[in-house]
Amino acid sequence: MHIAAVGFDADDTLWHNEDHYAAVEDAFAELMSPWSTVDAAKQALLDTEGRNLELFGYGVKSFVLSMLETAMELSEGAIGADELAAILGYGRDMLRRPAELLPGVAEVIREVAASHRLLLITKGDLLHQERKVAMSGIAEWFHEVEVVSEKDPGTYRRILVRHGIEPHEFVMIGNSVRSDVLPAVQIGAIGVHVPYHFTWAHETVDEHTLSQHERNVDGARFWELESLQELPALLERLTTS
Amino acid sequence: MHIAAVGFDADDTLWHNEDHYAAVEDAFAELMSPWSTVDAAKQALLDTEGRNLELFGYGVKSFVLSMLETAMELSEGAIGADELAAILGYGRDMLRRPAELLPGVAEVIREVAASHRLLLITKGDLLHQERKVAMSGIAEWFHEVEVVSEKDPGTYRRILVRHGIEPHEFVMIGNSVRSDVLPAVQIGAIGVHVPYHFTWAHETVDEHTLSQHERNVDGARFWELESLQELPALLERLTTS
Repeated sequence: MHIAAVGFDADDTLWHNEDHYAAVEDAFAELMSPWSTVDAAKQALLDTEGRNLELFGYGVKSFVLSMLETAMELSEGAIGADELAAILGYGRDMLRRPAELLPGVAEVIREVAASHRLLLITKGDLLHQERKVAMSGIAEWFHEVEVVSEKDPGTYRRILVRHGIEPHEFVMIGNSVRSDVLPAVQIGAIGVHVPYHFTWAHETVDEHTLSQHERNVDGARFWELESLQELPALLERLTTS
Repeated sequence: MHIAAVGFDADDTLWHNEDHYAAVEDAFAELMSPWSTVDAAKQALLDTEGRNLELFGYGVKSFVLSMLETAMELSEGAIGADELAAILGYGRDMLRRPAELLPGVAEVIREVAASHRLLLITKGDLLHQERKVAMSGIAEWFHEVEVVSEKDPGTYRRILVRHGIEPHEFVMIGNSVRSDVLPAVQIGAIGVHVPYHFTWAHETVDEHTLSQHERNVDGARFWELESLQELPALLERLTTS
């Protein structure tokens, strides 16, 4: 088969991301220790983020605003200048931190780019994602970077139409089954799941949804790789099949 | 001449925006009155925003983070739970507020869309801008919405290449000479300036830059309209010239 383009998710597919959030969540929980247990602080933050997602969207600035709101609630308004400054500082550090590529990513991207058109398709804050791409050292291999507010079938369809790519000639790769794989598969593209060792709670897909989706399409529907380093072999296999 | 597409800025070109920021700046200055004069509070906020622009980018969430930082500084850490909650609330209100079209915009857009392909090209927060477009009631008339992190010549060039539009067949309309008009003119497009009654201090272009630019291109370089309602007549004039 012919592959017209290969799409990559960015956060936790090409570079570390959740690690940084997890580290800040730990620090936040520690900061809240006068008022809350670690687990309760993390759960409260997750609840606030879930509540704010529709209004704030993804990204570091939204995360900071949700931390501030949670800190107010947990401390019942007793949050002081030091905690506030610390939380603002966490956000600043996250925004400044350069993208740290996952093992082998630079080599794989270069190899795949030699024979395919690459798209980077990522959620989150527009400027921050553009900065990470620019600083990643692999920006030159991508034909286009698409920062989107949500990854649903409509989003993938719009991107493919815009680039004149047929869905069945498109391969989408990412660490999130829900955001990167299922919606792409749903519009007829080939999905490839490369798990990251850590997945944000809002990104997990429940067993029921997943198995329903699999049933609808008669069994196995997307490829599962242990690491991105297996991708060139998979693309070779797809191209010659 | 042939016009292949017409690009519109959104904030303060199609709908009110700075009004909302100005109202919140007033409220913020009032909130800071125990520690600062109104003018000093506004100036301090503007300074913080300027300092944070490169890291935070444009949009409401960045504005809220800058207000919090400024409040910390002005109050020397004495900002309390009530002020913090008020500032978070301002942001939430701004994000929730539906787009309020400027007079005549709906009619003009509908009329121009009947004979031209329209693009909406806007800076700011991706999700918030998409929400405003979706709620504006005029989304259907636009061929594509481009939310960008900066409006420089490279940005306009990329958008035109992506849509297969020649710069000299493209008309760009907006309230900001610096963001909407000059960079578009610089790549060979036709610029149209429609002033809003209020312009953010970071958006003004100094006399020197402007006149230099005009000199470089031998005099009059872009069209100036009193209101967007004059646009159909201008497009008619350009098309028949």
